[in-house]
Amino acid sequence: MHIFVDAMGGDFAPREIVKGCADAVNEYQVHLTLIGSESAIINELSLVKYPKEAIDILPSKSVIGFNEEPMKAIREKQDSSIVIGLDAVNRDEEDSVLVSAGSTGALLAGGLFKLGRIKGIKRPALATPLPTKDHVTLLLDSGANADCKAEYLQQFGILGSIYYQNVFNVAFPKVGLLNIGTEEEKGSSLVKKAYQLLSETKSINFIGNIESRDIMNGDADVIVTDGFTGNILLKQLEGLSSFLLNGLKQAILSSTRGKIGGALIKKDLQSFKKEFSSDEVGGAPFLGIRGGLIKAHGSSNAYAIKNAIKQAIAYMDGDIISKIENTINIEMQSK
Amino acid sequence: MHIFVDAMGGDFAPREIVKGCADAVNEYQVHLTLIGSESAIINELSLVKYPKEAIDILPSKSVIGFNEEPMKAIREKQDSSIVIGLDAVNRDEEDSVLVSAGSTGALLAGGLFKLGRIKGIKRPALATPLPTKDHVTLLLDSGANADCKAEYLQQFGILGSIYYQNVFNVAFPKVGLLNIGTEEEKGSSLVKKAYQLLSETKSINFIGNIESRDIMNGDADVIVTDGFTGNILLKQLEGLSSFLLNGLKQAILSSTRGKIGGALIKKDLQSFKKEFSSDEVGGAPFLGIRGGLIKAHGSSNAYAIKNAIKQAIAYMDGDIISKIENTINIEMQSK
Repeated sequence: MHIFVDAMGGDFAPREIVKGCADAVNEYQVHLTLIGSESAIINELSLVKYPKEAIDILPSKSVIGFNEEPMKAIREKQDSSIVIGLDAVNRDEEDSVLVSAGSTGALLAGGLFKLGRIKGIKRPALATPLPTKDHVTLLLDSGANADCKAEYLQQFGILGSIYYQNVFNVAFPKVGLLNIGTEEEKGSSLVKKAYQLLSETKSINFIGNIESRDIMNGDADVIVTDGFTGNILLKQLEGLSSFLLNGLKQAILSSTRGKIGGALIKKDLQSFKKEFSSDEVGGAPFLGIRGGLIKAHGSSNAYAIKNAIKQAIAYMDGDIISKIENTINIEMQSK
Repeated sequence: MHIFVDAMGGDFAPREIVKGCADAVNEYQVHLTLIGSESAIINELSLVKYPKEAIDILPSKSVIGFNEEPMKAIREKQDSSIVIGLDAVNRDEEDSVLVSAGSTGALLAGGLFKLGRIKGIKRPALATPLPTKDHVTLLLDSGANADCKAEYLQQFGILGSIYYQNVFNVAFPKVGLLNIGTEEEKGSSLVKKAYQLLSETKSINFIGNIESRDIMNGDADVIVTDGFTGNILLKQLEGLSSFLLNGLKQAILSSTRGKIGGALIKKDLQSFKKEFSSDEVGGAPFLGIRGGLIKAHGSSNAYAIKNAIKQAIAYMDGDIISKIENTINIEMQSK
């Protein structure tokens, strides 16, 4: 098992990435290869405690920024941490994974270009784990494919189910289809067709439509949607949560009485925020890519990176890629 | 001006509807016609104070439930409050409006069947006002059309802009297109094409793409999207807000310290909740229908109904329907 970590990707790279890696090797006894500027990584490593043999460095010279055109950047920046990381995963084939908090677009374009799709997979999907009531819900596609066909959504159901089974250890994960009503005949022509296909998919436990207002109740383990709707949903979740919690803070601080009350609830508020923080759940895998590729949030701190690495370990241990290959093969034969 | 109110629609009908009507006639000095069971309305009216001449009753015998198939219900329940209300609006043509907290699907199907579309309008849209930071943002389509073409989205921009201008008194409302990135080239093929059409629309102030995480900042006055995405967004807003506020309450009540703090912040929390409650902003008009039709939230209390009636008055005063007719006519000629 080879875990590569892009030390240069994300808002707080390289410091928080390197710190998260040191925490991960201390906690999980794994070996990591950090990709990035050698001098910067050495400098950051000098600030943390870890067993020296557990981390080595694969040098890279450039970084792909969040605003660069993905395919152009992948083609032109051969010495970037993302491209060098993908090449390394490609050499090792199925037994390695890259964790990066860098550009989602560049990771997807690079993943498709350098690693390709698993045989039979029409489109890979970005699968984002969301902390919901009492458990984790996996939302896919959360942004890889803005235009989808019903057949893609069917495969997303299979991909999500396999990942959830093996990473979150649930035997028959409940797969729901995001829709604007719970009845079978509801929704756009895309979701109506996807509903039929998902119903016919033998390898998954399809529970029917799920409405967006019920996502946080954790009624489904895996929620299938197109990448446009999924991305809108994910960004609203982020925006609204921070808006409500900040607005509440402002409201409380506006009165003396509120300030005293605010001080008293601070601890409870923090534990509540922590419970539903995306830092807790680690990274989002690109499922369907022929190779391990996990996207950590752009604003990841060391704790979030450590959790993304934990998920990378589970991804490898779960042997996700060959399980996807086998299941897709069987589902296609059964048609 | 004729304002008809469906006294039988919504979770708290007829009591809260009738109470909201009495409050509205007291506050706005308007005349209202309540549609519903005569005995039930008379009974509820006996419990409230209002000038007797300000309210009269148009009797109906049945009610269309939330789970009935819309078109079937409209055809079969000719004596329902919604059908009788739509027939009344149809008789009065442009100078009347129906406010109902009943089934959205039945109101849309009935509106199309009984009143029809304004000439030149391809699809009517449900336009939901959302309370955002410092102002109101109008989201359309929030659920009338699950499948949309780019041309519909262009018209939604025109419809929303006219409504916002006249009901919220903003000379050049900022119209944004909901998308998964701010750059012009982002998104699905639908929104890319809609972006072009909206850019070319002379009668609106198009400000480009807006991401879902920024909605609550109130950057746009009008947000255009397809009815599938809009409905997903709206229901997530409802679900997430109540999930976060309830979760927070639970967290606070879990410790003694928190309980004391919670008591101290209660007032600030309530004023914050009130500021962003959908009860504050009134109903959602179906724009593009040839006749005034305003949908109040299914869980409307008297206060929400009073605000929906306030919006109905502004709708009539703003002469929305003939303004839509004129603008669509001009935009179509300029092609």
